[in-house]
Amino acid sequence: MNYSNQITKLLNIRYPIIQAGMVWTSGWKLASAVSNSGGLGLIGAGSMKPKLLKEHISKCKDATEKAFGVNLPLLRSDVIELVETVINEKVKIVFSSAGHPGKFIDKFKDNGIKVVHVVSSVKQALKSQSVGCDAVVAEGVEAGGHNGPDETTTLALIPRVVDSLDIPVIAAGGIADGRGMLAVMGLGAEGVQIGSRFAASIESSAHDVYKKKIVDSNENDTTLVFKKLALARMIKNDFSDKVLVKENSGASNEELKELLGSKREMKGIFEGNTSEGMMEAGQGIGLINEIISASDIVKNMIEEYNSALEKVQHIN
Amino acid sequence: MNYSNQITKLLNIRYPIIQAGMVWTSGWKLASAVSNSGGLGLIGAGSMKPKLLKEHISKCKDATEKAFGVNLPLLRSDVIELVETVINEKVKIVFSSAGHPGKFIDKFKDNGIKVVHVVSSVKQALKSQSVGCDAVVAEGVEAGGHNGPDETTTLALIPRVVDSLDIPVIAAGGIADGRGMLAVMGLGAEGVQIGSRFAASIESSAHDVYKKKIVDSNENDTTLVFKKLALARMIKNDFSDKVLVKENSGASNEELKELLGSKREMKGIFEGNTSEGMMEAGQGIGLINEIISASDIVKNMIEEYNSALEKVQHIN
Repeated sequence: MNYSNQITKLLNIRYPIIQAGMVWTSGWKLASAVSNSGGLGLIGAGSMKPKLLKEHISKCKDATEKAFGVNLPLLRSDVIELVETVINEKVKIVFSSAGHPGKFIDKFKDNGIKVVHVVSSVKQALKSQSVGCDAVVAEGVEAGGHNGPDETTTLALIPRVVDSLDIPVIAAGGIADGRGMLAVMGLGAEGVQIGSRFAASIESSAHDVYKKKIVDSNENDTTLVFKKLALARMIKNDFSDKVLVKENSGASNEELKELLGSKREMKGIFEGNTSEGMMEAGQGIGLINEIISASDIVKNMIEEYNSALEKVQHIN
Repeated sequence: MNYSNQITKLLNIRYPIIQAGMVWTSGWKLASAVSNSGGLGLIGAGSMKPKLLKEHISKCKDATEKAFGVNLPLLRSDVIELVETVINEKVKIVFSSAGHPGKFIDKFKDNGIKVVHVVSSVKQALKSQSVGCDAVVAEGVEAGGHNGPDETTTLALIPRVVDSLDIPVIAAGGIADGRGMLAVMGLGAEGVQIGSRFAASIESSAHDVYKKKIVDSNENDTTLVFKKLALARMIKNDFSDKVLVKENSGASNEELKELLGSKREMKGIFEGNTSEGMMEAGQGIGLINEIISASDIVKNMIEEYNSALEKVQHIN
């Protein structure tokens, strides 16, 4: 009998490992590779126009018979077109983020779509449950990319969200190997969402320079920027240094927006511009030492999880 | 047979639970209560003059026959007198923090004292090992009080420190119940150092108002202040608001030092001044809902640990 819990049943997957739907990294290649390995692959719609999303969904269906999903950032101005694309293409799982979890929930539910919302606080988690989400991803501040303003860490957040909800909880933030997976399962999570480790996989569509940067960086090589605009964690570089200098000298939101400009994530992640791009990544990168395939990531994570569990003893 | 690992053997304790030696909370009453309950109690010398430390050590000896230790902040101007007090009073365990771990290591070793240094990075951990420390406490940024400048979380820090060292690792930061203990043991730690949970115990010498504030606060009620001076985590209040406004408007170190003034920790923790004091506490306070005895804290933690471990299954 395979392992089973509320998350594996809800998402129809063998292992409770979800690959985060990240901008510029998570196309059909990565998502289908993860789903074919027993986890759940997510196409990251955040960096896709509706037409491109449709293409990726279609290719993902060709590449796997397993369940996969789409990550939808609800604050996008053209989000309704993305939502319609997901529904028309008969995707059955949506991970929503960055916006009100109830925004399209009826539409999703009417179409038999399972909805999991990404939250960074107990308050958001309760709201997600109350509007009818099937599960939440509770994400700590060690995660790469956008983070909640409370800056609560995964260790402090997960047990509080687990205690507060009836629906199951997937943990994210700082998890890059099977030990981290065991840690958050011990806190009561029933699954993990993994970002940076999959961003530096062979099937990730990110630039090789970005993948190599993740491999070469450690847990103390990321920083939080844009606290006043929208908090994000990225690998430290010339650009983040400039932002921090501005922020520490009391720059206005307008000045910060000007400095941010546009397409910083594309520049960092897709074009591999290590000095002027935003190379979003979490503190878990300290544990990432090679670019490997998605299937090896899943396999290693399960092996490490079981081996770490062997070592933990009851205390009497 | 009792549970045993490198930390229980090193410190001669039944349970690998260490009570952090915190300012204004950790006198002989708390330390002896923890040691009598099977953990390791630490007297927090940070808020004591040498004479007072001597008195607490003496009373602690009268109150327990079990092992206990002293936490010594190495940056104190009169630290040499504290060191001599510890040696003269034949204390056998020192947890050192805030300074170079090698500063007094020969003195300690010559007197048969076990030395554990508190670190917040792999670099500091390696240095502690190289000068001869017996173990390290690796503390994540969710911890209350002073934190390392890298802001690495416990989840990201512990496996990296464990992988980098030969000596055993005690985890700290964000751990307030048995689930948190299981999580960090799953990451490879062999013990936990617990702060806020013991600060809000019956035997803690902190003000009742401060203890109640911990009980009433949640994981998103703390903030990091004084990044430019010496990073510290405290419960949000009027004072922290003022500091953050100053910091965000580009205040100089001199202005910040003036705002800090002196005895802020005493005001917050010992005098219970909730608006103008520094009420240092970690994000784990979301899990603290009552003021209970040190022995109940230790007992609950072991029970929760075992019960959480029961729920975690191998994955096949």
